[in-house]
Amino acid sequence: MATTVLWSINRTARATARKCFLPYSKGALPVDSQRALFHNISVHSRLTSLPTARWAPKVTGVRGALLFAGAAASVAGFLAGVIHFQRAEMASVIPKAGEEDNTEIAAKCKTFMSPPCTDVKVLQQRKGEMSTRMEMLIMETQAEFCRALEEVDGGKFQVDRWERKEGGGGISCVLQDGKVFEKAGVNVSVVFGNLTEEAAKQMRSRGKVLKGKDGKLPFCAMGVSSVIHPKNPHVPTVHFNYRYFEIEEEDGTKQWWFGGGTDLTPTYINEEDAAQFHSVLKEACDKHHPQYYPDFKKWCDRYFYIRHRDETRGVGGIFFDDLDSPGQEEAFAFVKSCAETVVPCYLPIVWKHLDDAFSPEEKDWQQVRRGRYVEFNLVYDRGVKFGLATPGSRIESILMSLPLTAKWEYMHEPPKGTREAEMQEVLRNPREWV
Amino acid sequence: MATTVLWSINRTARATARKCFLPYSKGALPVDSQRALFHNISVHSRLTSLPTARWAPKVTGVRGALLFAGAAASVAGFLAGVIHFQRAEMASVIPKAGEEDNTEIAAKCKTFMSPPCTDVKVLQQRKGEMSTRMEMLIMETQAEFCRALEEVDGGKFQVDRWERKEGGGGISCVLQDGKVFEKAGVNVSVVFGNLTEEAAKQMRSRGKVLKGKDGKLPFCAMGVSSVIHPKNPHVPTVHFNYRYFEIEEEDGTKQWWFGGGTDLTPTYINEEDAAQFHSVLKEACDKHHPQYYPDFKKWCDRYFYIRHRDETRGVGGIFFDDLDSPGQEEAFAFVKSCAETVVPCYLPIVWKHLDDAFSPEEKDWQQVRRGRYVEFNLVYDRGVKFGLATPGSRIESILMSLPLTAKWEYMHEPPKGTREAEMQEVLRNPREWV
Repeated sequence: MATTVLWSINRTARATARKCFLPYSKGALPVDSQRALFHNISVHSRLTSLPTARWAPKVTGVRGALLFAGAAASVAGFLAGVIHFQRAEMASVIPKAGEEDNTEIAAKCKTFMSPPCTDVKVLQQRKGEMSTRMEMLIMETQAEFCRALEEVDGGKFQVDRWERKEGGGGISCVLQDGKVFEKAGVNVSVVFGNLTEEAAKQMRSRGKVLKGKDGKLPFCAMGVSSVIHPKNPHVPTVHFNYRYFEIEEEDGTKQWWFGGGTDLTPTYINEEDAAQFHSVLKEACDKHHPQYYPDFKKWCDRYFYIRHRDETRGVGGIFFDDLDSPGQEEAFAFVKSCAETVVPCYLPIVWKHLDDAFSPEEKDWQQVRRGRYVEFNLVYDRGVKFGLATPGSRIESILMSLPLTAKWEYMHEPPKGTREAEMQEVLRNPREWV
Repeated sequence: MATTVLWSINRTARATARKCFLPYSKGALPVDSQRALFHNISVHSRLTSLPTARWAPKVTGVRGALLFAGAAASVAGFLAGVIHFQRAEMASVIPKAGEEDNTEIAAKCKTFMSPPCTDVKVLQQRKGEMSTRMEMLIMETQAEFCRALEEVDGGKFQVDRWERKEGGGGISCVLQDGKVFEKAGVNVSVVFGNLTEEAAKQMRSRGKVLKGKDGKLPFCAMGVSSVIHPKNPHVPTVHFNYRYFEIEEEDGTKQWWFGGGTDLTPTYINEEDAAQFHSVLKEACDKHHPQYYPDFKKWCDRYFYIRHRDETRGVGGIFFDDLDSPGQEEAFAFVKSCAETVVPCYLPIVWKHLDDAFSPEEKDWQQVRRGRYVEFNLVYDRGVKFGLATPGSRIESILMSLPLTAKWEYMHEPPKGTREAEMQEVLRNPREWV
């Protein structure tokens, strides 16, 4: 039972996504998918009313087995019973836990867009560590998202593995000039090395002071990030990023924190889209803390603010950083929930507007908005600024977030009463969508 | 005689420009201009061998009369004789110096793209002050450059006067989506108010500490700046900026300095163009100090460097800042020489390539290079960064420098042996052009 219940987040997400595909995909889904759809919806309906243990590591089939192993060592005492129960359940399907985990890691890795940054054997050896669990999560998120986009576009992602001389590397997946997407980038990076105390301070938005050995701090940073710029101006741009940092202080204690968020940047306001996007995020947040959605929604509006234009970049979503409470397991579970929403947040909107007709003027307005996107990313985005200033960064992966095309028209001010003016009004006065 | 001699810089500049127009303008010049051309060339040939008093205020007709008045009070003793001689020469044409200056200021202002930022009466009252002389120079530079561009393009500049709530204002001239120019912006601003000590420090590239009264420093900053993005990828982008700052310290002493430069950003290397561009700048520099051109050429390559791409923005030119020596007159005379080169530096190149054929691939490469231009301007340019961070700045004027269109192609690397690769090679290893 527990196994089934804990599938729910993932299935709910998929079901929501697929549920929304149906009316808009215009027969694009194969019969098998449609069958799966109805199956998933019924599983979802059956499960949503069941109670779930809030911070329990989620046993979600292959993914669950992996996380379960990692969680077993560090999970809080009150969850021990639940874990034992889950392990027993799994035992009926899968013989020996340790071996299986390794088999599962290897099998899972084969479904990724590329072998993971860290060697599979190392991941297997360190399967219980948070860095391994997070690396598996970001690789899985990349693969799921890329495949969902490929399904819509019909094109294939170019996959580039790259190494960072100073330690680590990444996998950049880019689909450029596709049928649906002008530029779609989904990037994973896992980097490590030593940071100066100053750089370590800058990595945290609240600038916590960290003590290093001889001023140096061994660190590990990893994340998945994506920006999708569609061709059709009625399909919004989406961005997400989920990341994890670990820094070892002089005395050997590990400082760690998570950060991330997902946000939407439409060219034109569509209230239904904005509400659906925020609802999926709110649902994911609410599972973990009632304050997460309201707090992280506000943080998102504040973060994606183009000060010199006095407007936000888009209609927001959620954004958080420095998340190191209430505990590592809980924080990871939350990040995992968020990462699982990227497909159901966005894909339904893409399917819905894929074939919307648009005028040259609407395309033009999209290009102007793209210009603002570039302004935000190059002038304010902490990740981009940090990346550009870091020696050895892979610039192409950092600037993958920039649109294929953009425009800067002098004194472009949409006339009152137009849909362009409506968009601008929303960007100047962020709204509540749920 | 002196009057004629001192016309030389201006005429030399114009003559050079027109000389180069002739073979390439394909009959675009009206007969009158062609006549003027030959007249100017002969004047030029006749004059180039004549000695000029190095720091003498240049009596260049209307402009000369204005500067002469300003210079009279502060010019070094050894020039007194020359000045008297000039004054006597002028006296034969123009009755009373003081009155005439005012008439001349008023007349000159009528030739500008718009009335100047400062009220004409105030300029007349303060005609001897450097701030007035510089304001007249930047207004004149704007008008000359705009008219030269209008002549090539056939379009008209949109002229916007704007005020800054905190003090001062500006005049922005933009020609967008013209026949020749995709976006041409020529901006003048004259702003004043109070600066914090920290902001004052940031305004100087060498970060000199200035003492203010209760931490506040009254300042005045003015300049002309321009970025021209042509449509044809064989016509390069040009940028120039000439500026003057005055800051009053606690004890009433005025700190002042000049800054500026002109630089070229082609899409494809054309050695002849680069050499001609640099020659005109070198000639202007050499009149003032033999080290100016080599030093400011290097400074330019260093300043317009896109660190994260390890390439310069273009083929350079000159760049200088914090120029406060050997004296105010000398520094102004140098800046004036530079400002007078903007037309002869650039217009001949425009006329030359105006009708060059180009392929869609060449246009595409231009768009990629435009993307780099945006990267430099938004990530590194001190002026833009300062402007975006300053409350009350006119954002449209600051970001006027961005191209109408730009492109970011993932992993765009031109194949070896192509003209695109040649361009990139030059950007990675700045050359000497003269």
